[in-house]
Parts: sequence; C-alpha cells; structure tokens
Amino acid sequence: MSRKSKEDISKIYQQMQDHICKEIELADGKGFFEEDIWQRPAGGGGRTRIFKNGNIIEKGGVAFSAVHGPTPDKILKKLKLDKADFFATGVSIVLHPKSPMVPIIHMNIRYFEMDNGVHWFGGGIDLTPHYVDQEDAKHFHLEVKKVCDQYDSSYYPKFKTWADDYFYLPHRDETRGIGGIFYDRLIAKDDEQFENILQFSLSLGRLFPEVYGHFMKKNSQLSFGENEKSWQSLRRGRYVEFNLVWDAGTKFGLDTNGRTESILMSMPPQAEWEYMHEPRVGSEEEYTQKHLKKGIDWLSLVK
Amino acid sequence: MSRKSKEDISKIYQQMQDHICKEIELADGKGFFEEDIWQRPAGGGGRTRIFKNGNIIEKGGVAFSAVHGPTPDKILKKLKLDKADFFATGVSIVLHPKSPMVPIIHMNIRYFEMDNGVHWFGGGIDLTPHYVDQEDAKHFHLEVKKVCDQYDSSYYPKFKTWADDYFYLPHRDETRGIGGIFYDRLIAKDDEQFENILQFSLSLGRLFPEVYGHFMKKNSQLSFGENEKSWQSLRRGRYVEFNLVWDAGTKFGLDTNGRTESILMSMPPQAEWEYMHEPRVGSEEEYTQKHLKKGIDWLSLVK
Repeated sequence: MSRKSKEDISKIYQQMQDHICKEIELADGKGFFEEDIWQRPAGGGGRTRIFKNGNIIEKGGVAFSAVHGPTPDKILKKLKLDKADFFATGVSIVLHPKSPMVPIIHMNIRYFEMDNGVHWFGGGIDLTPHYVDQEDAKHFHLEVKKVCDQYDSSYYPKFKTWADDYFYLPHRDETRGIGGIFYDRLIAKDDEQFENILQFSLSLGRLFPEVYGHFMKKNSQLSFGENEKSWQSLRRGRYVEFNLVWDAGTKFGLDTNGRTESILMSMPPQAEWEYMHEPRVGSEEEYTQKHLKKGIDWLSLVK
Repeated sequence: MSRKSKEDISKIYQQMQDHICKEIELADGKGFFEEDIWQRPAGGGGRTRIFKNGNIIEKGGVAFSAVHGPTPDKILKKLKLDKADFFATGVSIVLHPKSPMVPIIHMNIRYFEMDNGVHWFGGGIDLTPHYVDQEDAKHFHLEVKKVCDQYDSSYYPKFKTWADDYFYLPHRDETRGIGGIFYDRLIAKDDEQFENILQFSLSLGRLFPEVYGHFMKKNSQLSFGENEKSWQSLRRGRYVEFNLVWDAGTKFGLDTNGRTESILMSMPPQAEWEYMHEPRVGSEEEYTQKHLKKGIDWLSLVK
C-alpha cells in the first residue's frame, strides 16, 4: 500500500468541501454557498464558500485551502527545524445559526507536510450550544466517539480531553462550548497508519453534515424570544473572545499574514458585551454557564 | 524638590478619575457612573466605574486601579530583571457613543515602579471616529499637541508616530482610528523631570473631558440613519479585533490573570462582522476606510 501524495489529499479534501456544502444547503432548505476563489501570493490558494440567505444558518462558511511555500519562521523556530518548504491543505468550517436554540458548530481537518519529510494530520469537531442541553450533548459526543472508535479506541478519550483543554477561555474560566474532539501533530508510523488517519479525517468530514443536520432540523423547531436572542448575543461575544484571544489557528493566521477574510469567516454576524453580566439564579442561562467546564463526561450524563 | 511617592500618585490619579467622571456625566446630561470596587487577591485593587443609562454614551467606563505584588514573570523576563515587587496605578477609559457620528475615545495614564528602583510612566489618548472628519481630526490633534508642547516639544511628533504604530491592525492594514498619542516606559532622569512627566499625564487627564465633551456636544447633533448604524457596527467589530488581537495591555491583562471584566470594559456594546465588506465607491465610509492609515499629518490637512 503506497501513501497518498499531498496532491491526492488536497483533492480529496476539496471533494469533502463539495459534499459538506451540498448537504448543508439541503439541510437549510433555502440558503446557498457563494464561492470566493483566492490565490496566496507566496504559493497556493483556496476556495472559501460563504453561506448566504439562509433559513437556519445566519452566517458562516466552509473553506478549503491548499497553500505552500517557505515554512514561516514561527513554525521552524517552534519545531527547531532548518529552512524547509511546507504544504498545508484542509477544510475549515464555522456555522452560526439564527436561532439561539441551534448550536454553533466548528470543524476542521488538515494535513501538513514539509519537504524535509516532516508531516502530520490535525483537526477536530466541536459544538457550542447557546443553551446546553444534556441530551443534545450526549448525542453529539456519542456520534463523535463512534467515528473515533472505528479507527482507534484511544482517540475519543484522548482527543475529547484535548478539546476541553483547547477550547477554553482562561480569562473566563469557561470552555467555549461542550467540546468534542481536537487533535494536532498526529504523525503516522507507516503507510498503513497514514491511510488510517486520513480516513479518520474523512469520516469526521462525513459526520459533520449528518450530526449538524440533525441539530439544524430538530432545534430550529424550538421556540425562543428576546431573552434567548440576547443571551445568544452574549455567547457570541465569548465565541469572539476565544477566537481572537486564544485560538492558535486564528493567531497564527493573523500573525503570518494569512488571508484575513477567510480566517475571520469564523466571526459571528453580531455579538454583544455587557459589563458583569450574571445569569439569573435557576435560569437556563445559569445552567449553561455552569456546564461550560472541562472534564464533563457527556456520555454518562442523564437529565 | 522631592519626588512624589507611589501612594501620592495613586491618590492623584484617583482624584483624576473623580474629575473625569463628573465632567462626563455633565456632558452626557442623563447617564451616570456606577461604581464597582474590587480587590486583587495578589495585592491592591481598583475602582471600576461603568457608565449607565446614557443619553450620548452607550457603553464604557472610567477605571482606576492601584495594584502591587510580585512582578509577573513575563515582565521580568522581558526586562531581564530578577525577582522584584511591583506597584502600578493608572486611569483607563473607553467610551462608546450611541451615535455613529460621535467618535469612540480611549485614554490611559499609568505609573509603574518596582522595588529595585525601576520606574516609568505610560499613557496616551486616541480617537476612533466611525466617520473620519478632517476638521474633527485636526481639532483633536491640535488640542493634544498643545498639551504635549507645554511639557516637551518632542512629545507630540514622537508620541503621535508611536500611536500610529501602536493602534494598528496589521491583518487589515488599517489604523484603529485617527490616532492621537501613545507613550510607554517614559523614564525620568531626575526629580524635576519626574514631576514634569507626572504633570503631563495630569494635563492629558484634564484634556480628556474637555476634548471629548466637545465631540459629544457637537457630533450628537448630527443626523444619521440605518446605513450609518450598520457601518458603526462593522467599525465596532474592528475595535474588538484590535483590542483582542493586538492591544498589548489587554493581552497582558488576560495572560496574567487580570480582572477580566475591567479589562474588557473596552468592548463595544455590540459589533458586527460581514464577509468581505467593501464600502461603496465615493461614499463617506470609503473615505473613512482610506484615511485609517499611518503617517497622516492631521494638523496640516484642509478639506
């Protein structure tokens, strides 16, 4: 079994973007993706697809990119490596729904290699409900675990903890949402494992529209009012705080002269900030706030 | 002439907070500051005053703090210094107006010292109009220059350039607003200069309500519509981007376990993001966008 080339992986990821966009359009029933093709001056480019005119989705995108060129000094320094060219390809998604009852979702699958032979996979999928619901959280984590378990039984526990640690706002002592999985620098020992990790990322890609489609359909039926919209705006504020202050990918992109509009595709349509906001005791908002914590075993919780 | 103690400076800065709050309440005519007194577990505390129920001001605050304790490792490492206790006191202000025709303003004056004798002053004042107006910009820079020139004729040109460089969003290649002045690590050679720099910071403090009161009064008379409100929301988004991604003070505060709600007092009440927004050719918004650049000599411009 021979290893797929970077061009093969890039092509497969591009097809995954097509698949996901088609499925999300179907699930929304009204909106569509508008395509924006861009070139990177230093090498490569991308195909950013922004969702427009949605019924359920208010803002978001599904971005594919395949970029290459001299490895940024920041990476070389971190890895203690000499000059080398790099190649990176991936699919990155953030969707912000209109309804506060539908969660925000994020997914990313990516492959990175350097011409000195160093290479790895990274990615993850995580859910940020404006209102934490235990049944929803359990469903999400169960579906993610099922995919993980098909490839390696150590993946889910390891990557679930990684997501808890990664999607965390130290300055608020809260997690961004209910987590999911996150993995980075996953290095294959041999060609077989390389294919296995690649297939794992593709299974995550296929899971994305399935599991999010489920929430789009089910949760967009739930009623809400001004109170829920206003809470959604504050939660969107926290999403902004995480992405701009702590997200390593966003920081890296903005630091290394990445394509700003594609990087900040993850921003919500709007967000609000209120000094010292405290949810009302006993409210659904307080319940959510209390459940934005690391280390919750969503699979074993029953309401 | 003997040098004022850190306790003296802290007291004077606290009085400056009182003065500024009183003047801003008068200029607004309706809103008032609500006080929030807090203690810092590691030493010291502050008095955060948040503006409520305003007529002209929508959100913002005037914060005083005087904190002390072991110097954070980040500072020690940066300055290549051994362990030492520090003391820091200052007044920090951000005001977001309701009307898009009134600019956002920021001011900060601060004093820092360590028990090994190292000490310095820092601060600045800068204006972020949602709509750049040359007359307003000239007025603002002229008033700031007048204060600077009373103390040192090198201050304005030096600190104006510093503000251009500091209040800059590399990922957008734009400045946050029309700048003003910014200075840091201003070290006095002797007691006389120490007093001089302290008085300079107090003159800036007194300038604040004067110059901003002028814009509150004049610009809140200007009419605006949906188009201007929507542009304001996008500009507020940029304000969030600067503060969360690039502002050294915010980063440092969040990194070193500062008081989150006081640090993020600077966030606008709301903000919006739109993928690839481009102002209409020939519009006032495009004019503003084109004038968010470093190195503009606002004093010499005539419409």
